[in-house]
Amino acid sequence: MRLLPVLEGLHSAEAFNRPFLESFLELVKRVEQQPEGFADALRGRVIATVFEEPSTRTRLSFEAAAHRLGAGVITVADPGSSSASKGETLRDSARVIGGYADLLVWRHPRDGASRLVAQCAGVPVVNGGDGRLGHPTQTLLDLYTLHQQWGSLQGRTIGILGDLLHGRTARSLAWGLAVMGARVVVLPGPGLDWETGFERRILDRFSYRLQRVRHPLFRAWTGAAEARLLAPEGLTQGRLFAGDAQSLDHLDALYLTRLQAERGAGERSQGVFPGLLVAQLRDPLLAKAVFLHPLPRRQELPEEVDRDPRALYFEQARLGPLVRQAVFLAMIRSDLHPLPPLQPLPAGSADHALGACPNRNCISHAEQVRAPWRVEGRIRRTFLCAYCDTVLEVHYVGCRSSRRVHPAHSPQVPKILPENLRPFPSRDYALDQGYLWGGA
Amino acid sequence: MRLLPVLEGLHSAEAFNRPFLESFLELVKRVEQQPEGFADALRGRVIATVFEEPSTRTRLSFEAAAHRLGAGVITVADPGSSSASKGETLRDSARVIGGYADLLVWRHPRDGASRLVAQCAGVPVVNGGDGRLGHPTQTLLDLYTLHQQWGSLQGRTIGILGDLLHGRTARSLAWGLAVMGARVVVLPGPGLDWETGFERRILDRFSYRLQRVRHPLFRAWTGAAEARLLAPEGLTQGRLFAGDAQSLDHLDALYLTRLQAERGAGERSQGVFPGLLVAQLRDPLLAKAVFLHPLPRRQELPEEVDRDPRALYFEQARLGPLVRQAVFLAMIRSDLHPLPPLQPLPAGSADHALGACPNRNCISHAEQVRAPWRVEGRIRRTFLCAYCDTVLEVHYVGCRSSRRVHPAHSPQVPKILPENLRPFPSRDYALDQGYLWGGA
Amino acid sequence: MRLLPVLEGLHSAEAFNRPFLESFLELVKRVEQQPEGFADALRGRVIATVFEEPSTRTRLSFEAAAHRLGAGVITVADPGSSSASKGETLRDSARVIGGYADLLVWRHPRDGASRLVAQCAGVPVVNGGDGRLGHPTQTLLDLYTLHQQWGSLQGRTIGILGDLLHGRTARSLAWGLAVMGARVVVLPGPGLDWETGFERRILDRFSYRLQRVRHPLFRAWTGAAEARLLAPEGLTQGRLFAGDAQSLDHLDALYLTRLQAERGAGERSQGVFPGLLVAQLRDPLLAKAVFLHPLPRRQELPEEVDRDPRALYFEQARLGPLVRQAVFLAMIRSDLHPLPPLQPLPAGSADHALGACPNRNCISHAEQVRAPWRVEGRIRRTFLCAYCDTVLEVHYVGCRSSRRVHPAHSPQVPKILPENLRPFPSRDYALDQGYLWGGA
Repeated sequence: MRLLPVLEGLHSAEAFNRPFLESFLELVKRVEQQPEGFADALRGRVIATVFEEPSTRTRLSFEAAAHRLGAGVITVADPGSSSASKGETLRDSARVIGGYADLLVWRHPRDGASRLVAQCAGVPVVNGGDGRLGHPTQTLLDLYTLHQQWGSLQGRTIGILGDLLHGRTARSLAWGLAVMGARVVVLPGPGLDWETGFERRILDRFSYRLQRVRHPLFRAWTGAAEARLLAPEGLTQGRLFAGDAQSLDHLDALYLTRLQAERGAGERSQGVFPGLLVAQLRDPLLAKAVFLHPLPRRQELPEEVDRDPRALYFEQARLGPLVRQAVFLAMIRSDLHPLPPLQPLPAGSADHALGACPNRNCISHAEQVRAPWRVEGRIRRTFLCAYCDTVLEVHYVGCRSSRRVHPAHSPQVPKILPENLRPFPSRDYALDQGYLWGGA
Repeated sequence: MRLLPVLEGLHSAEAFNRPFLESFLELVKRVEQQPEGFADALRGRVIATVFEEPSTRTRLSFEAAAHRLGAGVITVADPGSSSASKGETLRDSARVIGGYADLLVWRHPRDGASRLVAQCAGVPVVNGGDGRLGHPTQTLLDLYTLHQQWGSLQGRTIGILGDLLHGRTARSLAWGLAVMGARVVVLPGPGLDWETGFERRILDRFSYRLQRVRHPLFRAWTGAAEARLLAPEGLTQGRLFAGDAQSLDHLDALYLTRLQAERGAGERSQGVFPGLLVAQLRDPLLAKAVFLHPLPRRQELPEEVDRDPRALYFEQARLGPLVRQAVFLAMIRSDLHPLPPLQPLPAGSADHALGACPNRNCISHAEQVRAPWRVEGRIRRTFLCAYCDTVLEVHYVGCRSSRRVHPAHSPQVPKILPENLRPFPSRDYALDQGYLWGGA
Repeated sequence: MRLLPVLEGLHSAEAFNRPFLESFLELVKRVEQQPEGFADALRGRVIATVFEEPSTRTRLSFEAAAHRLGAGVITVADPGSSSASKGETLRDSARVIGGYADLLVWRHPRDGASRLVAQCAGVPVVNGGDGRLGHPTQTLLDLYTLHQQWGSLQGRTIGILGDLLHGRTARSLAWGLAVMGARVVVLPGPGLDWETGFERRILDRFSYRLQRVRHPLFRAWTGAAEARLLAPEGLTQGRLFAGDAQSLDHLDALYLTRLQAERGAGERSQGVFPGLLVAQLRDPLLAKAVFLHPLPRRQELPEEVDRDPRALYFEQARLGPLVRQAVFLAMIRSDLHPLPPLQPLPAGSADHALGACPNRNCISHAEQVRAPWRVEGRIRRTFLCAYCDTVLEVHYVGCRSSRRVHPAHSPQVPKILPENLRPFPSRDYALDQGYLWGGA
């Protein structure tokens, strides 16, 4: 296995940064404007699409992209042919198929699978969706669709509506929008919110602030009159978290996510429907909003909306192969359009003391390996599983250089250089390892 | 959805006309004679093959054709990945995959699915087989195989033997043969005849007449000494339907269709076997006949026949990719070999009054949409479901211009321009809609 | 069906000979050194991969090879789409798909399927693995991996360890090693040995002798302190089969094969484990050995070995597409690098008298055909099923020229020209056929 910091490929939206994204969107535009200029860019190359979880449209979109660049495609589309069903580790599958192709697109039901595949493959790996967490090429596609409309996303207000808990696209998009300086209105259906820790990481990383906004439609969608707004600090106005929420007068985009059929039906009967109703199309909040949806849709997006000029979701789908062409070019023909580097996500090595990743769906459990950890945050250090980004319970933090250990929240901890950090589950464990008590 | 009249693509043999077919067969010959001239004709294009019903050989044949033209292929071969199993409409699948490819080949278990896909896809759609009805590229292949043997099909006599009820190829072929002026001997196994309405439409459209012919082999195949012959009016001789059937002395081709294993066995025990027996090979009726079969075969075509020089069915199969190359060229490289237009099949819009399509296997039921209708016939107007060509029960017909309604069989009805026709299930309904009684 | 002697394609390692293999390994090297020189070698060609038994990695390896040569690929990856599940014979599937492609790669669960496919296909057929017997491209890959290490294989000592009974790769490799003059140490797990008849054919064909060798590790792997060594006669030293076995001091390579999970576990508990243990890595026997494995592995090859520089198995896997590129070139672009011919395996026609092939897994049973036979051996004639190479019970042998019949072991039999041989199950049957008793 290779160390995570040097992983090649595209694994999560969390590695995006503004220079990378801006240059990437430019590359997409170049390919769109002169596709024939790239028709042979991957001639003689082979791209493997391995879908251990079915997703016909995502697979076809990647494969169409490969063909449009002249690459050959080898594919595993049947979960029954997956490594797991053969009693083989994902690591071995990645090692072998990595030897056959110049780039792997991998989709897997487990969180963090893409990074583990990349550790073993020896060639760049593009995450085709893993577990609940990541779907970074969908986010690139979403961002390009909006970019085509507006040019810049800075300061735009995008509502993300529906099932934020189970959908991987919503989390990735929120992260991508924050990179671009956009404002995100979080509109989960009842019981369908994402976890607090996730949102906190966005606020911390991008110096965003959390506001409250209100609008009558919010109650119809979420059951609550108020919604959370994630916005750049500089843009924040008014009394935040102090008394009443501000009224929001418009959305620039409404991003809908798929609803489980059972769930949606039940909530609708109580007056809440975390989807778009035809009657809501005339609401001023949406007057200038475009509608996006990663598709497939269910009843949260009625077919009647298709005829509305604000409906962009089929255009969004149509752009899938184009954006993925740019992803392939970025990964294996960087000579044609050099891109600024992705955000490094440095990771330590696995530490027995921290125990197994608390996320039962983390790939580390299925593969029976100890997950490495990585650290995030400048003011408060957050320790994450380096595969699945789950926040780890770290109560004490040591410095490998000074050999002193502190409580996790001690003001000493942010002063420790990242490469010297060592997380501990308990003080006793740290002392056993020869660390001295450094105090809070 | 786009209006059916402007549908691009190839959906049913019923859209064929003589100039189109003759030019098409010429195109096939061109590709056969200089394949390397077309090796890059679709370079940079992507063709999607979507098989929501398995048919390995048809899929491979289309895909080989695409590769021989330099196209990339994206494919859905597993019915488990189909739209239906994901709870998505076929309409949405067509919209999304239509955005990924330059042409779609679609196979679906429902009658009329190809036309509905074409309404949504935005790119040409080739029917890879839908329901019991259509398989137009198989017919093109069958016609080209015969054309290779004979040059012209005009006046040739082709027997179609076996299961005409369930097989889609037999219906499409009969239609194609009629376009080319050939004579068709209808030889269904017991209980395996096609519906009367279908045959009547052929007679009407092509000014064919129905004769009766007899031959001892017919009893062995169908259980009856006489068989129906569909032939151009000009060629009709003798006393038709007046007394005895004419004896038929030879067939130019015998087209066999697949028999369900259970069915065939039962009938054979009663002396009837709707297939070819080795002993029949020496019968003078078949002395000059070539044998065709869409394959796969069962016991209706014994392997011993393979060595017979009249056996053309493997050559027929071998021509599949070639003919489908020509189909792709006709659809997306019409600049290379312009073809006369297909027969337009004008369709009205769905009319609530007519109710659901009576064919339970029509795609309109699965998609929960109201099927549009179309009209056929010059002397007697026949109203058909515009998806699945099922004859609709129309008892009254109005004229949108004169606002008068007549019984369907009134001599006034053929005088109404097709674009003014409006079908009604009942007279009362028409009067309620403001139509005046125009009389019989 | 075509006669087996003229079969095109690559069906079993038994057709290899030294000049062919040496020239082939040179071709692989050429492709490895200048891949771009072959990037268009199969442009406009179509290769079909038909996997009626799943094997994702083998399929991907073949398909990557095809793409790297510019060929189009059509594929049947789902056993549920196989001919058998459609009630079609394998013969018909081969005939039809053979009409679509320039070369077929076929994998099938039945022994000998590849040869039957080749009889019908009309194009070259490459065995992608059939039944327990053949996997010749894996052997080419194994040989190339060793060739890369050593240059010549002559005189090298290779241990083959594990499940020799069920694995097809071990048998094919033993044959290939004998062709190249290498020494093979046979190391089966308890109850996992291959059949005696197989080994005897190697000894006979290559003038090899059987020795006994011993080493403490052998007991740990097989339960017996001694193992069989197959070696060229010229190299044999010491007292063979006379008293004690010679001690073996080193292996040049250890070839591991996959172990059934249940089986391995049970044996391990009794001190025997037909796989490699980490502790054994330091044994002098393995000091210079490289480790190969056809993958996927189970517990017989612990992941800890991966870091060992002797571990070649992922490099071996990585070479799969390269070696298969050379296979395709050898089959359909022999103009680019002419190869000496494969060993002909002449076959007689099926003879009713010999009855069905005794191997119940022979393709002849599934296809309900009578298998042809072929003959091997110069001193003692061995009659084999020409599909699956199973040794047939032949007690009497006639000469078609002299019309005399002899007991199978009569010294007269080797004098009969192969084309005049006629095997009989009994003396009476031969006499009934008009043969005269020729005596022993």
